Parts: sequence; C-alpha cells; structure tokens
Amino acid sequence: MVSSSRDWFSDLWFSAPRLMGGLMSGTSLDGIDAAVVEFYRNGDNHAMRLKSSIALDFPPAVAETLKAMTKATNIDKAESVSIIDVSTVHTGLSHLYAEAVRKACVQAGVAVNALEAVGMHGQTVWHQPTGVGFGETTVRSTLQLGSPSILANLLGVPVVGDFRAADMALGGQAAPLAPMFDYHFLRKADENVIALNLGGIANITIIPAGASEERVIAFDTGPSNLLIDASTLKFFGKRYDTGGSIGAAGRVLSRFMEALKDEPYITLPPPKSTGRELFNKEFLEKALEYTYFDAQPAEDVVRTVTEYTAWSVAENIRRFAVENNFIDNSLHTRIIAGGGGTNNPCLMDALRRELPDMTVETTDAYGIPADGKEAIFFGYLAYRTLGGLHGNLPSVTGASRKAVLGSISIP
Amino acid sequence: MVSSSRDWFSDLWFSAPRLMGGLMSGTSLDGIDAAVVEFYRNGDNHAMRLKSSIALDFPPAVAETLKAMTKATNIDKAESVSIIDVSTVHTGLSHLYAEAVRKACVQAGVAVNALEAVGMHGQTVWHQPTGVGFGETTVRSTLQLGSPSILANLLGVPVVGDFRAADMALGGQAAPLAPMFDYHFLRKADENVIALNLGGIANITIIPAGASEERVIAFDTGPSNLLIDASTLKFFGKRYDTGGSIGAAGRVLSRFMEALKDEPYITLPPPKSTGRELFNKEFLEKALEYTYFDAQPAEDVVRTVTEYTAWSVAENIRRFAVENNFIDNSLHTRIIAGGGGTNNPCLMDALRRELPDMTVETTDAYGIPADGKEAIFFGYLAYRTLGGLHGNLPSVTGASRKAVLGSISIP
Repeated sequence: MVSSSRDWFSDLWFSAPRLMGGLMSGTSLDGIDAAVVEFYRNGDNHAMRLKSSIALDFPPAVAETLKAMTKATNIDKAESVSIIDVSTVHTGLSHLYAEAVRKACVQAGVAVNALEAVGMHGQTVWHQPTGVGFGETTVRSTLQLGSPSILANLLGVPVVGDFRAADMALGGQAAPLAPMFDYHFLRKADENVIALNLGGIANITIIPAGASEERVIAFDTGPSNLLIDASTLKFFGKRYDTGGSIGAAGRVLSRFMEALKDEPYITLPPPKSTGRELFNKEFLEKALEYTYFDAQPAEDVVRTVTEYTAWSVAENIRRFAVENNFIDNSLHTRIIAGGGGTNNPCLMDALRRELPDMTVETTDAYGIPADGKEAIFFGYLAYRTLGGLHGNLPSVTGASRKAVLGSISIP
Repeated sequence: MVSSSRDWFSDLWFSAPRLMGGLMSGTSLDGIDAAVVEFYRNGDNHAMRLKSSIALDFPPAVAETLKAMTKATNIDKAESVSIIDVSTVHTGLSHLYAEAVRKACVQAGVAVNALEAVGMHGQTVWHQPTGVGFGETTVRSTLQLGSPSILANLLGVPVVGDFRAADMALGGQAAPLAPMFDYHFLRKADENVIALNLGGIANITIIPAGASEERVIAFDTGPSNLLIDASTLKFFGKRYDTGGSIGAAGRVLSRFMEALKDEPYITLPPPKSTGRELFNKEFLEKALEYTYFDAQPAEDVVRTVTEYTAWSVAENIRRFAVENNFIDNSLHTRIIAGGGGTNNPCLMDALRRELPDMTVETTDAYGIPADGKEAIFFGYLAYRTLGGLHGNLPSVTGASRKAVLGSISIP
C-alpha cells in the first residue's frame, strides 16, 4: 500500500525504499515469473535488494490456448481465435498473476499488502511494429493480455501494466524495454557490457564502457528458446531441451543451417524487433524442407538450431558492436546473460565458441537470478513510472521522445 | 495538463474546476461520441458545464471489422477473429478516439492540452458476467478494446480507461456504470427519477425521490437500438430507422411479438446485464422463424421490434420499480431518457403509451444532449478516479465493495 496518496508522481516516491512486485510471462508461453524486490535510490543510481523470485507453470489448457492464439506466421495467415478466449485470457491471466505474486510474497516472507505496487508485463499475443490496414489508415500495434485493473483489485495493491503501448504511440518499436534495467544495474565504467536475454526471443543491450543512457542501443537479435523448443517438441515431444542434453548429442547439419541462415532478419541493422510471428514452428518446417531427411538423427536438428541461435546472437554482436567500433574494442567486453536459455549449456557453450574473446557469464553473478530477470525488470519499470520517470530509451526503440510507460490501476 | 503532479489522488483535485474529455463508443458500433465538459464541486454535489459534444462515424471498414468481431451469439458459437485484428483494433481505436477528442476540443474552442484528462470507455467486444473455463478454473470477464496509454501519448493528455474491470474483479457485473452519473446529475428530492439510456442496449437507473446513493439500483432492461437496427438492416438495407419512419408505417405482428417476448431475460430480476451476445441478428432471425411470412409488410417487423423494445423497458419499470414499491408510488415519476434511441419518435411514443402515468422526457431538458450523455459520463468517471473517488455502485453491480475504477496513463 502507498503510505500516502500524495507520494505518487513526486520526488517523495524516491525518498524511501519501495517494495515492488514484478511479473513477466514471455513468448515461450511456458508460465509466469514473479519477483519481490526492494528498489531504492543510491546517490544518482538506483539499487535493488531481491527478496524472492519464483516461477509458476501455466496450467496445460492455458498454455494450449495461448499457443493457439499466437501461432500465426504472418499477417495473411493469422490464426483464428475466439473473441471469448481473448476476453477470458485477458482476465484469467490476471488471476494467475495474482497467484504468482502471492507465492512470491510467501517466499519473500512479506504480506501482499506490504507491496507498494506490482509491475505487470502481461502476455504478448501480437507484436506488429509495421503498419497494417485499419479503416482509411494503417496502424502499428502491440497487444499484451492481462488486465492491470483486475490484478490490482484481486491483490488490493496498485498495479502498473501495459508498458509497451506508449513507446509505440510515439513511433517506437515498443521493444526491447529491458535495456533500461540493464543500463541501471549492469553497466560498468571500464568494460563494455552486453546484456543478453535468452527468452523466447534473444535480445541484447549494448552498453559501451562508461556510456551515458543516450548511447545505449538494444534490439532483438533473433530466436532464442522459441526455435529450440519447437525442434524438441516436433522430434522428441518435449517442451524444452532440458540441460541441453539433446543438442549435445547431435551434430550440425550444414544444409539445414544454411537454410536457417537465409532468414534476413539476423543481419538487418538495428533498431529491430521480432517475435513468435517470425520464429515459430512454420519457420522451422520451412527450413527443414529439402534440407533434412528422416534418416538423419533428430538430435542433429536440435543441435543445428541451438548453434544457429548462438550464431544469430554472435553475428549481431560482431556486426553491430565490434566491427562498427560501437564499443571501445581496446577494452574487455563482458556478456551478461539472463533468461531460461542460460540453463542450456549446449547453447551457452556455443556462444562462448562464437565469441572467444569475450567473457560470457550470467546475471547470477550480480545477484540477479538468470531465470527471473525480466520479472525483476518490470517491477523496476513500475517503480520508475510511479516516480514519474521515463521507462523507454528512444535510442533503443526509435520513439520520438522519452515516455513514462504504462497505465496505473489503484485498487 | 495537470497543474501539478501533486494534485493527483488528493482533495486538491477537487479544489478547482477540471476540464475533462469524455469518450464512448457503444454496442451499436456506429461510431464515437466525444465531449468536453468542465466538472466542479458545488457544495456536496458535483456539477458540470458542457463545452462541446460531438459524434464521429466509424470508417465503414472499421465498423465492419467490429461487427464481425462481436457477432457471436453465445459461448459455443463464438465467431473466429484474427488476433492481428484484435491488436490492430485495440491501437487503431485509440487513433480514432484521438481524432474525436481533437474535434470536440475545436468545437469547444479549447486546446487539447487544456484538458486535465480524458475518460475513455473503449469498445466493448465481449461481456461475459458468467464464468467460462480457463485452465483449472472459470473466469468472468469483460473486454473493452482501445488503449488508454496509446491515446494519452497521441494527445499528450492523461487518459483514464478500462473502467469495467475493477468491478468485475470484485464480483460485480461491471455494468451498468452510468448510474453514478445519473445519481449525481439527475436525482430529485421530491420525484422519483428513472434515467433511461437507449443505446444499443437499454438500461435504467432507478432513483427513488430523495434516495441515498446506496439505494439506487440500475440494470440493463434488454435491447434498445440493437434489435431495431438489425431489423432495418435486414429488410431495408439501412443501418437505422431514421426518425422512426419505417416503424411508424408498420403494424404489430402479434405472433412475432409473442416469440420476442419468449426471451426470459426481460423479466429476470436485477441485478442483470446483457449485450450484443444475446440481442443480435440471430435473436431476431430465431424469433422471425415460423412467425413471419414474406407476404407481410417488412415495416411490420420493424414496428413490432420497436414496440417490443418499448415494452421491455416498461415491463422492467413496472415489475422492479412500481409493483414492488421500490419507488414511492405516491410521488410523480419522471423518465429521463438519453442515447440514440431518443431520436426515434416511434420508440419514444410507444414508451409513453406503455407508461401513461409517468413523464417521459430527454436529458436535453437538463442541458445534457441525449445523444452524448455517455461520453459526458465517462469524462465524469475519470474525474472521480483522479480524485480518488469510487465509480461503481455496489447496489447496482453486485460488487463486494466500492472501487476507484480504471487505469491511468500519463503521457
């Protein structure tokens, strides 16, 4: 609960530590990450103390509904969904988010109403940074399901949500948003830092040594778990390559790899963003066509996809950080990875081989659990919004200006 | 613009008149109503000065998309929609809303940034006050498209939206919400007032003479323009019965009328709410089956539907205001009507014949344009939310408590 309603949108907000909840459910569609974190001002910087970080699987039927809703491959082949499902998921996710926050509070040993507020990303079901027809005009859009107002009233705690809309309204790509967190919690004065998130999609934040906020760039490099998961599901009926063991047992299929590398997104210059609408099952099927034959071990497909994923991350770093001298190449560069993909040693090892001169580590080294980084981050974005601070980096998203992100619901 | 961010959520908010925008697009799916209104505190009451009230038709392609999206008849027969359409409409409506607010500001002779905030209802595409399956549980939901955050950033003005979610999270029906406005701006000490809104759906607010807020009840009585429009479209290819002239040329078909009256919703005791998911083209078709023959004049269908609409309103008033002595029957009762249906004299005359002892007038008599009442009302709800006042009436919706409604987006 806010100690006084007068604190809102004022410097007073930053005068005391604030206990925040954070919620993320990503494009992997596997479940919800929740965190309880205390944020506070430390000189000119923000600092944090993590109280808890948990994960909650979606009930299978919910995961299925979400997968059906989001499996469109492109504008012309959008899947049909029921508007009732959209309405039900929008509210229903808030009920699951409430459960996740309660669980995170139990683990943190705090009462739910001890939270000042919760930052809720919602579930992206469509991201359309290029215009599509709407009446006499075209419209760029992004859609996250999950209602902040429902969650606020279920928890009795203010909720900030719908973080992406503002940036898109201002001409930005509305993604990625994590760079604000990366900049404030991972930057270094004497080393280049590349914060890497290995969620459904992989994205990087490039922070040259000692850079100001305005110099940071970030973008989606391409697939991360989305394609690996799609390949294990197709060939092994498994939702993930647990511990990277399937990939580790396979070898790279060179023709299949070439087909994957045909996708032009990877080498497109930033700013750029992508999602499940490009890197999905159909993308995998198309690359497999004429390049994979049933006699070949299925492990080879998973390995190739894993190596492709590592390559796509590394290729973006080589082109848009190193070769163009965006970072100071005389200084050491540290890749700090978060996201579920950090649990896949086959992927992490491939990345280290791709970028031998750089240190590849995980956010765990900085007290930020690699699996729960995004949940912490949306708690941080809510902390900024309630303090009246912008949450986007126009240098990253291409928006016309900084914006206080999200909408605020008071229970 | 807010004069100071510190005013938010405090009594200071009410210390000065606040110039608000209001936006509504109703279940008729014909377009957007926008208003600019100054609200202020007048003793213990709220008062208003209307600055402008305008209507904007949807571009035909948008109206078609919305109609396709919402024409489901029930849970088992939900229409399929594209998730891209949902995403595009969610953002695209905000662009149209921005245009409507700008137009209303021009008519009011004020700059857009002179508005303190805008209250935006959004477009209801589904309303599901009974539970449907979601994972291992059931969920009640309501879905309004249109993003407050997008609109706030397009206008550069704070926007309050998503007014219905909170009440539903608290166990309420999330409808109707207009009674809060009716109570504050139409109540009388010495007469019973029944505020009637003739939008797509008809709803009434019953305010016994001198009643406290807690005694007010309100509910959807059944169809209003939805069925009349469906009948003119089917038989005459016209979106409305302009001036009620088609209905006026017809006669009541008694068997068809009986089929319409078979619908049990009309006599169901309140609280209750309904929408396009019940009173739609399929409802009309079903009632026509076996009761209407091509040789009969099509005007008779429109007349019968018009009389049925008036009857359904009156029957609810007779049962749930008069016969149960909810109002003081020794005092005069005044029906104050708003909504597009007030432009249909065939409907209004039918209502006067149904309720001969009551006065039937329109909100125009109180300085509130009958066509623009709901837009004004959502400006008022935003005014309440920003002052930290509840916007729902638990006696009306069945919610477990009063709630500050909506989510707030700051540009």
